[in-house]
Amino acid sequence: MDERAAGAIGAAVQVLGDRWSLLVLRDVIFEDRRYFRALLTGSAEGIASNILADRLVKLVEAGMLARGTAARGQRARYSLTEAGIQTLPVICAFGDWGRRWRPPHGAADGPADRSGLIAASMDQLRARHLGAETPPPAGGEPLDQLKQLYYRTAGDG
Amino acid sequence: MDERAAGAIGAAVQVLGDRWSLLVLRDVIFEDRRYFRALLTGSAEGIASNILADRLVKLVEAGMLARGTAARGQRARYSLTEAGIQTLPVICAFGDWGRRWRPPHGAADGPADRSGLIAASMDQLRARHLGAETPPPAGGEPLDQLKQLYYRTAGDG
Repeated sequence: MDERAAGAIGAAVQVLGDRWSLLVLRDVIFEDRRYFRALLTGSAEGIASNILADRLVKLVEAGMLARGTAARGQRARYSLTEAGIQTLPVICAFGDWGRRWRPPHGAADGPADRSGLIAASMDQLRARHLGAETPPPAGGEPLDQLKQLYYRTAGDG
Repeated sequence: MDERAAGAIGAAVQVLGDRWSLLVLRDVIFEDRRYFRALLTGSAEGIASNILADRLVKLVEAGMLARGTAARGQRARYSLTEAGIQTLPVICAFGDWGRRWRPPHGAADGPADRSGLIAASMDQLRARHLGAETPPPAGGEPLDQLKQLYYRTAGDG
């Protein structure tokens, strides 16, 4: 690959431009699924266990997830790294496109500037995954607000 | 797939969460490659011709590209649709992540609000691909500014 001609977009797509990796990150971020089994059984797309195992290894290798050391007989817990937390704007860009172009995900309210909500959600993820100290969010959990936006269907009230 | 549980993110990832589809869109958008051969020979990642052919069909089926009707002996020209133009924020989110986390793509200037530049670039794409009338951009072509951002490496002056 011509690294220079591929540019920053090519470099990011190389590690992040994969359906299952994106869906695993979505579920870690929005569903707080931190264990292999939760990611496997909760998957709306029905991810296969060998694919999940492969993508977890790849996401750890690419520095987006950290795998907690598991004591004997215990299961390993995954956490987002800072690089993983910063995939949130990518995930949300997919969500915005889906709301507009894939009914029935409903976008009657049109596109909006989500940068503040995304930044607050990243702080919430830093507290949850990195143990960072953050002030409690005002006016509800920002991640829940984002989730509501992207998981609502047109039929919802 | 559980369509509701997959949400808008899952629905978008379903059609857009593919390395080669994203790279083809990148090249149509930033390199103005509109023909099969230009996309094939210009590819920094060395896309194979069968993969390119497959992804062009999929992007047309998903409504992101339109294939111009080619006269006998002429090659078909691809244009972005409005849904394709609106993938630009997704592509740019990948670029922003790559600039930050994949050296040497250089992000010394840090993250910035690109929403105005992205909106202006989408107008430029509408003029180029949809024949929309748009006022000439003030202060240089916005797409070129975005391109410079994502294709610059740290060694560049």
